[in-house]
Amino acid sequence: MFKKKNVSLAVVRRLPRYLRYVEDLLNHDIMRISSSELSQRMGYTASQVRQDFNNFGGFGQRGYGYSTQVLYENLVKILGLDKNFKMIIVGVGNLGQALANYANFYKKGFKLVGLFDIDPQKVGKSIRNIKIQHVDELKDFIKKNDVDIGVLCVPSEVAQEVANLMVEGGIKGIWNFTAKEIEVKDDVVVENVHLIDSLMVLSYKLNEKLIEKQEASQK
Amino acid sequence: MFKKKNVSLAVVRRLPRYLRYVEDLLNHDIMRISSSELSQRMGYTASQVRQDFNNFGGFGQRGYGYSTQVLYENLVKILGLDKNFKMIIVGVGNLGQALANYANFYKKGFKLVGLFDIDPQKVGKSIRNIKIQHVDELKDFIKKNDVDIGVLCVPSEVAQEVANLMVEGGIKGIWNFTAKEIEVKDDVVVENVHLIDSLMVLSYKLNEKLIEKQEASQK
Repeated sequence: MFKKKNVSLAVVRRLPRYLRYVEDLLNHDIMRISSSELSQRMGYTASQVRQDFNNFGGFGQRGYGYSTQVLYENLVKILGLDKNFKMIIVGVGNLGQALANYANFYKKGFKLVGLFDIDPQKVGKSIRNIKIQHVDELKDFIKKNDVDIGVLCVPSEVAQEVANLMVEGGIKGIWNFTAKEIEVKDDVVVENVHLIDSLMVLSYKLNEKLIEKQEASQK
Repeated sequence: MFKKKNVSLAVVRRLPRYLRYVEDLLNHDIMRISSSELSQRMGYTASQVRQDFNNFGGFGQRGYGYSTQVLYENLVKILGLDKNFKMIIVGVGNLGQALANYANFYKKGFKLVGLFDIDPQKVGKSIRNIKIQHVDELKDFIKKNDVDIGVLCVPSEVAQEVANLMVEGGIKGIWNFTAKEIEVKDDVVVENVHLIDSLMVLSYKLNEKLIEKQEASQK
């Protein structure tokens, strides 16, 4: 697979959405789609779609469009979903439990292999047949099982401390749900989820509508 | 406050991050910052920062930079955080509970006023002094209390149905945590949270590192 170096993060962030649409097409037995059709469905321009895919060598044929199956297989590979990355969740509160029960991880090829907490009430119990272990076991577990991704669902106050344990164990990536911006060495990838950011974008749009209404009523 | 029409969504999505950094500066008693300093901290270019703020009339003074207090107050207003939008959560599973307990909503000025579920085990119980009501009460509650935002945490299969109830009640915005892309009339704002997208971006980056390593070892 041809792949340009340094694909921009904006393009990468659009790939999961492409995958979702292409899956939906496959589920509806639509085996072929033009870039203009795909772009219309997604609210992009056709040239944006073509440019995005050209970062990875394009997958279309002139006059034919895209085979949805080929698109799907390429997106899966590009996103690394065929690698079956191994994942652990640290912090099994409501959010950690919600994530542990999130069936989509399995469907997408991520493999949840461990759960960790410090609460004696939780340690020893199981979710989806995975026993919750004490955080004291975290470092060794990551080493022994060659875990790829650590999901950080602990209180912000201990986020950096737990991230350090993960890194010492040899974790490759951290999916950070805490409000804290954690610091790790360069070769560990961090992806932050700031739920409140998305709520603020909603708030921005609601506020915009309010202002429009006020302006309209003043005319 | 001067405001250009149709600020691009890419700019809007950066605003919460600006707010986070500016809050951090205020917490450290840093009352003034140049665009180049701010951009360095955030990993943007100085011209990007200036352009972003110029969408809202800029807030800087030549030769002085930005007053962090002025920046903060403007960002709060632009994001509508001074409106104290009223919010309900529908679906009080693990994710709904995690969100109900998420203290940041309160800090940011969102007001959680109601919780809804259909599970008889849950209806009548309380979280943070808010009683969980049956979904049968949803429409009336939204109307009576003029609720702004509905948080959709129900199973995907009933997402559209519950969204319809919200819209019939007069909801203005839906924060959608389900995997389903819901359809609503034009004047209702929808913001989708696809957690798996962010995990896929992490997976992309891990895969990229794997490929780099393989290429390096083949040389």
